[in-house]
Amino acid sequence: MAFVSGLKCRECGREQPASPVNVCDFCFGPMEVVYDYATISEVVSRDRIEAGPLSIWRYGDLLPADSDNPVDIMAGYTPLLKADNLGKRLGLNNLYIKNDSVNPSFSFKDRVVSVAATKAREFGFETISCASTGNLACSVAAHAARAGMRAVVFIPADLERGKVVGAAIYGPTLVAVDGTYDQVNRLCSELADNDDYRWAFVNINMRPYYAEGSKTLGYEVAEQLGWRLPDHVVVPSASGAMFTKIWKGFNELACLGLLDGVEASSFGPDQNTVHHPAVTTQMHMAQAEGCSPIVSAWDNDEARITPVRPDSLAKSLAIGNPADGIYSLRVINNSGGSAYAVPEDQIVSGIRLLAETEGIFTETAGGVTVSALAHLAEKGAIGPDELTVVYITGNGLKTQEAVEDEVVNPLTIKPTISSFEAAFNG
Amino acid sequence: MAFVSGLKCRECGREQPASPVNVCDFCFGPMEVVYDYATISEVVSRDRIEAGPLSIWRYGDLLPADSDNPVDIMAGYTPLLKADNLGKRLGLNNLYIKNDSVNPSFSFKDRVVSVAATKAREFGFETISCASTGNLACSVAAHAARAGMRAVVFIPADLERGKVVGAAIYGPTLVAVDGTYDQVNRLCSELADNDDYRWAFVNINMRPYYAEGSKTLGYEVAEQLGWRLPDHVVVPSASGAMFTKIWKGFNELACLGLLDGVEASSFGPDQNTVHHPAVTTQMHMAQAEGCSPIVSAWDNDEARITPVRPDSLAKSLAIGNPADGIYSLRVINNSGGSAYAVPEDQIVSGIRLLAETEGIFTETAGGVTVSALAHLAEKGAIGPDELTVVYITGNGLKTQEAVEDEVVNPLTIKPTISSFEAAFNG
Repeated sequence: MAFVSGLKCRECGREQPASPVNVCDFCFGPMEVVYDYATISEVVSRDRIEAGPLSIWRYGDLLPADSDNPVDIMAGYTPLLKADNLGKRLGLNNLYIKNDSVNPSFSFKDRVVSVAATKAREFGFETISCASTGNLACSVAAHAARAGMRAVVFIPADLERGKVVGAAIYGPTLVAVDGTYDQVNRLCSELADNDDYRWAFVNINMRPYYAEGSKTLGYEVAEQLGWRLPDHVVVPSASGAMFTKIWKGFNELACLGLLDGVEASSFGPDQNTVHHPAVTTQMHMAQAEGCSPIVSAWDNDEARITPVRPDSLAKSLAIGNPADGIYSLRVINNSGGSAYAVPEDQIVSGIRLLAETEGIFTETAGGVTVSALAHLAEKGAIGPDELTVVYITGNGLKTQEAVEDEVVNPLTIKPTISSFEAAFNG
Repeated sequence: MAFVSGLKCRECGREQPASPVNVCDFCFGPMEVVYDYATISEVVSRDRIEAGPLSIWRYGDLLPADSDNPVDIMAGYTPLLKADNLGKRLGLNNLYIKNDSVNPSFSFKDRVVSVAATKAREFGFETISCASTGNLACSVAAHAARAGMRAVVFIPADLERGKVVGAAIYGPTLVAVDGTYDQVNRLCSELADNDDYRWAFVNINMRPYYAEGSKTLGYEVAEQLGWRLPDHVVVPSASGAMFTKIWKGFNELACLGLLDGVEASSFGPDQNTVHHPAVTTQMHMAQAEGCSPIVSAWDNDEARITPVRPDSLAKSLAIGNPADGIYSLRVINNSGGSAYAVPEDQIVSGIRLLAETEGIFTETAGGVTVSALAHLAEKGAIGPDELTVVYITGNGLKTQEAVEDEVVNPLTIKPTISSFEAAFNG
C-alpha cells in the first residue's frame, strides 16, 4: 500500500483526498501528493530497499501507488556508469552517466508511467491517455498493453518516426495532431475535463502521481553511489517536472536519514519544497536553444515563464509552456545550480561525443544534456574532481533521422579482399 | 583473472594454449575454451555471484576473460518477466520472457562482445572487428568506443536502417559489403588470416571466447528463477552458437552444484558436451522459413547442415551457413527439444503479439521466437503448467521498417475537440 494522505495545492495550500485531479478547485494551482512521512520513516530502510525488485518499485514506500500490485514492465534501476573517457575529454575526473535509455520502452518515461498506470488502475480507470512529445506515448502504450487497459495517445503529427512506430507497435489508439505539443496538451486538458471521456491522462489528471515517478532518478543515483549524493547533476528539461523531482528525491532521502552520515530531519509543513541542509547537489538544467523558456526566465531573473513556440531538433524537449517551469527555477536557485540553452548545432555533436567516448547512443535530448555538460565543464562551473552525474533519459534509435546523414558514411565494397583494400587504403 | 587452461578442438580433441585462433591447425575443427573447473568449483558460489555487479561480469569466474578489468557497458542482467497476458493467449500458465532488448547497444550481442573485447585487449589487439548481420556491428562499435579501441565492422549493404545508424553512431569504420552475410563472413575470415590485418574479429579469430558470453543467458535465467531451470526454452538461432551456449550454461551450473537441490558432479573429459542428468530443460530452436538450414537438417534427420541462400525478413537470423549448426542439432537431440521454421508471414504477427500483450517491442528475430512459441503451445509440445522461458534477444527500434506500414495508422486531427470527436467516433 502507498503512504499517501492526500493532495495539496502548491499555491494556496488547500488539501483534499487523493483523487485524479491535478488543478486546485480554488486557485487553479497544481496539486501535489502529500505523504505520511511519519509512517514511511518507520517502515523504510536501506535494507528494505536493497532487498526489493530491480525496478523503481524497490522504492515503493516512497511512491504514491500500491507497490504490491504495480503495472510493471521493469522500469528503472538502470545502469550508472563511470564515464572516464568522456570525463577525460571534458577535464572531469569523477563523472558518471545515468543511462536511462535502456528502460523497457527506451526512455525515462517508463518510471512515471508505471506509477501513473498503477494509480489509474487503483482509481478504476479502464483507459489511459496522454499528451506526448513521443517517449511518453511509447511508454503509455506499452504499460497499457501490460495492464490490459486501453490506451489513447496524442502526439504532434511531425514526430520522429521511431517514436511513432515505437508507440504504435503496442496497439494504442494513436492520435496525430496537426499542431505543437502545447496545442496537443491543451486539447487533452479539455478532454480530461470532459465527462464523456473518463480517461486517466497520465500527465494531466494523473499528473500529481505521475510526476512522482521521476523521484526514482534521484533515489537510484544516490543508492548506486553508495547512499551519497553527487556534487552536480545535469538534467534535460521540457516541462521541468523531472528536474524538480530529482531534487525532491535527494531531499527525501536526506530527511529520512537514508544517506551516509546524514541525520534524519522532519519534513516540515511544506513537503514539496523541503530542503535538507545536507543536500548540496547543484542542479543544472539543460534545454535546447530552440525551446528554452525556463533558461530564458533564469537568465533574465524572472519568476514567471514566458511561453515560446518551439523550433528545435530536440522534439522530446519541445514544450513551450512548461508546467513546472517556475518550480524548477526555484530548485535551480535553492541548489545553487544553473540553466543553459544549448545551441541547436551542438545537439548532434553531443550525441556523437557520448557515443564515441562511452558507447551509449542517446536521442536528441541526450545530445542537449551532454553539450550542456561540456559547457559547464569548460566554463569551470564544475570542478575537475567534483562528483557529477549526467542524466541520459532517452534512446538514440528513436531519433535516427537527426544523426543519420552525418554518421552513416560506409565504405561500400564487393565481397573481395581487393575491393576491400582499394576502399580501405584508398 | 580467468580460469582458462587453454583451447581444445571440438573435432579431434587436440589442445593448445589460449590464443586468438578459432580453427584447429590439424583438422580445421572449431576450437573451444577449456576451463580449470577444479579451481572454479573452489571459488564460485551463489553468494559470490549475487554480490557481483548487475551485468554479465557477476559470472566472471565462468567467463574466459579477466573480470577484474572488463570492457563493460553493463551488458546483461536484463529483466525476466512473468508473461501472464501472453501466456493466457497461448494457454501457458507459467511463461517468462527474458527481455534482452534492453542491453546497452540493444541486443544480446553485448554479452558476447563484452567478453570478446576484454579478451582482445588482453591479447594486445588495438582493433576489433566483426562480420555482422547488424546487432553485432552495433555492439562491437559501442564496446570499441568504451575501450578506446578502433572498430572496423563489416555488414551486408542491405541491412535495416536502425542497425546501420545504430552501429555508425559510435564512430567505427563501417564497411558495407554488396553480398550476403555469408559472403561478408568469408571475406572477414580471409582478412583474419591475413598478417596485414592484426585485428580481433570477435566472431572469427576470437570466436571461442566470444561465444562463451552467451552462457550468461543461461546463468541469468537460472538465477532469476531462484537457481532452478525452466522445463522449456525457446531460442532464436542464426549460427546456432547462442543456442548451444545456453545449454552449456545450464549444465555448468548443475555440475558446479549451484542449482537448487542438484548435486555437483565432475565435468568429465569433454567439457563442451557435458550433460548433467538434472538438466531436463527441452531446448527449442526458432528460425525463419526464409533461412532455416538447421531446422531443415533436424526435420530431415541429417547430421550435416546444407547451406542455404537466405531470403528472410529476419535479417539478424539470416546466416545460410551456420558455424554451430551441427552442435546445435546435438543439443536439440540431447535435450529432447525441437526446431521449427516460422513462416515469413508470421514474423510481424509475432512482434505485434508480444508488444500488445506484454509491452515489449522486439525486432524481427523476436517475432520469429514468439511465433515459434505459439506453434509449440498450439501443438502441445509445451504443457500448460510447464515453466517456459522465451528469449527475446533484440530491439524493435532497429527493424522499424518491418512493422511500420502495418501498425502506424493514426487518427489525424486538428487540435480541436470537434476534430478529435469526428475522427474518434467516426
